[in-house]
Amino acid sequence: MLQAIRDDAKKIIDAIIADNMPQQSVVNALKLHNFGEKVYMVAIGKAAWVMAKTASDFLGGKLAKGLVITKYAHSQGNIPNTEIIEAGHPISDENTILGTQKAIEIAESLGEGDELLFLVSGGGSALFEKPLEGVTLNDIVNINNQLLSSGADIVEINMVRKRLSAVKAGRFAEIASPAHIFSVVLSDVLGDRLDSIASGPAAPDTATNEDVANIVDKYRLTLSGQMKQYLLKETPKQLTNVETVITGSVRTLCSSAFKAAQSLGYTPYFLTSTLNCEASEAGRVLANIATEIQNGTSSFSKPCAIIAGGETVVHLKGNGLGGRNQELALSAAKGISNCGATVLFSIGSDGTDGPTDAAGGIVDSNTLTTLKTKGLNIDKILDNNDAYNGLKAAGGLIITGPTGTNVNDAAILLCR
Amino acid sequence: MLQAIRDDAKKIIDAIIADNMPQQSVVNALKLHNFGEKVYMVAIGKAAWVMAKTASDFLGGKLAKGLVITKYAHSQGNIPNTEIIEAGHPISDENTILGTQKAIEIAESLGEGDELLFLVSGGGSALFEKPLEGVTLNDIVNINNQLLSSGADIVEINMVRKRLSAVKAGRFAEIASPAHIFSVVLSDVLGDRLDSIASGPAAPDTATNEDVANIVDKYRLTLSGQMKQYLLKETPKQLTNVETVITGSVRTLCSSAFKAAQSLGYTPYFLTSTLNCEASEAGRVLANIATEIQNGTSSFSKPCAIIAGGETVVHLKGNGLGGRNQELALSAAKGISNCGATVLFSIGSDGTDGPTDAAGGIVDSNTLTTLKTKGLNIDKILDNNDAYNGLKAAGGLIITGPTGTNVNDAAILLCR
Repeated sequence: MLQAIRDDAKKIIDAIIADNMPQQSVVNALKLHNFGEKVYMVAIGKAAWVMAKTASDFLGGKLAKGLVITKYAHSQGNIPNTEIIEAGHPISDENTILGTQKAIEIAESLGEGDELLFLVSGGGSALFEKPLEGVTLNDIVNINNQLLSSGADIVEINMVRKRLSAVKAGRFAEIASPAHIFSVVLSDVLGDRLDSIASGPAAPDTATNEDVANIVDKYRLTLSGQMKQYLLKETPKQLTNVETVITGSVRTLCSSAFKAAQSLGYTPYFLTSTLNCEASEAGRVLANIATEIQNGTSSFSKPCAIIAGGETVVHLKGNGLGGRNQELALSAAKGISNCGATVLFSIGSDGTDGPTDAAGGIVDSNTLTTLKTKGLNIDKILDNNDAYNGLKAAGGLIITGPTGTNVNDAAILLCR
Repeated sequence: MLQAIRDDAKKIIDAIIADNMPQQSVVNALKLHNFGEKVYMVAIGKAAWVMAKTASDFLGGKLAKGLVITKYAHSQGNIPNTEIIEAGHPISDENTILGTQKAIEIAESLGEGDELLFLVSGGGSALFEKPLEGVTLNDIVNINNQLLSSGADIVEINMVRKRLSAVKAGRFAEIASPAHIFSVVLSDVLGDRLDSIASGPAAPDTATNEDVANIVDKYRLTLSGQMKQYLLKETPKQLTNVETVITGSVRTLCSSAFKAAQSLGYTPYFLTSTLNCEASEAGRVLANIATEIQNGTSSFSKPCAIIAGGETVVHLKGNGLGGRNQELALSAAKGISNCGATVLFSIGSDGTDGPTDAAGGIVDSNTLTTLKTKGLNIDKILDNNDAYNGLKAAGGLIITGPTGTNVNDAAILLCR
């Protein structure tokens, strides 16, 4: 029975990744715009290659010059008239600066009447970066690390970091002005705030100086006086040369899961697409929900699929290996250990969860026993943030490889 | 609109407390037993007085001798043939020992054919205590404090603490043997494990020496060698002189909320009765669920009530004033601030949440703004675990006074 449910989970995973690949959605977005005879293109983020390839196929000979900046191993070959640069993620490196400088040169070369297709996907915050004059890449990496380890959420991280950049927070659109920018966005930010996705290179910045000062205070960031001055340099509050279309988001990911679960005979329930709490606690709550379902007293009748999309956070306590999806899944293993025909999985749609080769994790009511049999203590594994090795021992790693899309995460509970 | 929903919340709170008062449920339980002409009675816990009064009214002249041990301010007057002792909770004090000694004397006086009615409610773990020979009350308070501040859950706390006791873990039933014990239990432990409720004075102990050793290890408790020896003294694994009935639990609390919300026109959804995660994270998840409901994309259609019962935990970071229900509610305030007609409340059925005079907290989509207007920073308040003062400033304290029942907590989200 458990194996049958795990097989269903596998089918759901395959379906939601396939449904959320950018190809079709990018074409749908491009059809909304009347392109002229000559189009320039800049594509950034983890899905940049797939989005750019799709646009190139769509535009054909109209594509005058293109640039792709994506994560290492995320490019899949040549695209006509397009240069491809792979760079560091989640930590920017020198290729980031190199690629971004080339994007700036394209933007600077454009004049009145020119047209720039700007393809944006998650990961763009790290992959598209040139520090503001006077700021070093090290300064940015340092603030980034402080924010990541403090447990700040992605909206807060971007709100601070974008202000140290020459291209974020609408500044890239300013450089391309007066050319017209048609921006197609694949969202990996909960609530789809345009100024947050890839730090909004072509979106007006809604964050005020006060917002930024509050974050610095909240997470007790260590900053020099000069760095504080850079942070409070004003960003564009409106942009007249930009048109934007959002083509995919975690909500479409959840919607795909809903349909896939339904087609397999589960009654699907969609809880939220904005899950943003501590990963391990989200796992506990889903296990609590499973307990009630298997007790027959819940509002959710078996067989059912409980769907929660979003982006949880991990406050590191240990130095093990893992990612937020793996930690969420393994944290649920204890709570569902008496839950019979129950499987829970959590997956990052980009296929890379944390600094690991796994996309996420899957557990069932037998996972705790499997770990015990192998002499492993689940509490110690979780305390060390070592979900990768815990799941590996229990046959619970989900490996997809980089998928080419990036619309955040889905955690799904299957009860029969 | 928000005030109308808050009025509904108030009606739900009144209804679920009234529904879960022990009077009726205790009578129902007593009817299951054929009492002889002479009944002895010991009642322990926060609901002890109400349960004992109900039993006294039911038994009339059959009640030969009774004893009530409850929390300060929880007794409501005299009961015929019954001595009432109020003592410290959640920290035991000298009245605890005094009362427990009197209970032991009653138990020791009983012989073959005698009958002891044992009324058990939550809080009994602290209120019914006499240390094992050689152990001091200070030793127990010390271990209790270590466990509470480490974030151990109530099952784990009791598993350890009960072993240092002369009356817990089935030992009180051994003292009363060969008399017959009829035990009526109001559960405040998730899953209603008899050996956990009030630390199971009349229930076989299911915890093994290995379980206890694991907890000591997990939370890195500081213990003397002698104390470790006491912890590993074996407890009764079966008791032949005890009959037990559970009359109420957090599930009945949720069930009452379900009915009350429904009667007010909300579609009720019951998520879980075993919520046991960090209080603040539970608040965030409920806010995430509210966001999706108000976006119109959730599986829950408005108007609706989302019900989650259980007992969350708080890992203290600050030194403010609060309780788990208050912290859960205030933690949701930020997440629901754009949620329109949304109210969330969390309440402890005993009427006393943490070391405060509040039963819980209530917030709505305007609470964050109210706090900002008063110059208060919600993140700082939560970081300091000062939900009591935050809610007080926002008109969000729920004050009921001690209710006389104790079947754990319910968190309820109302969306219109």
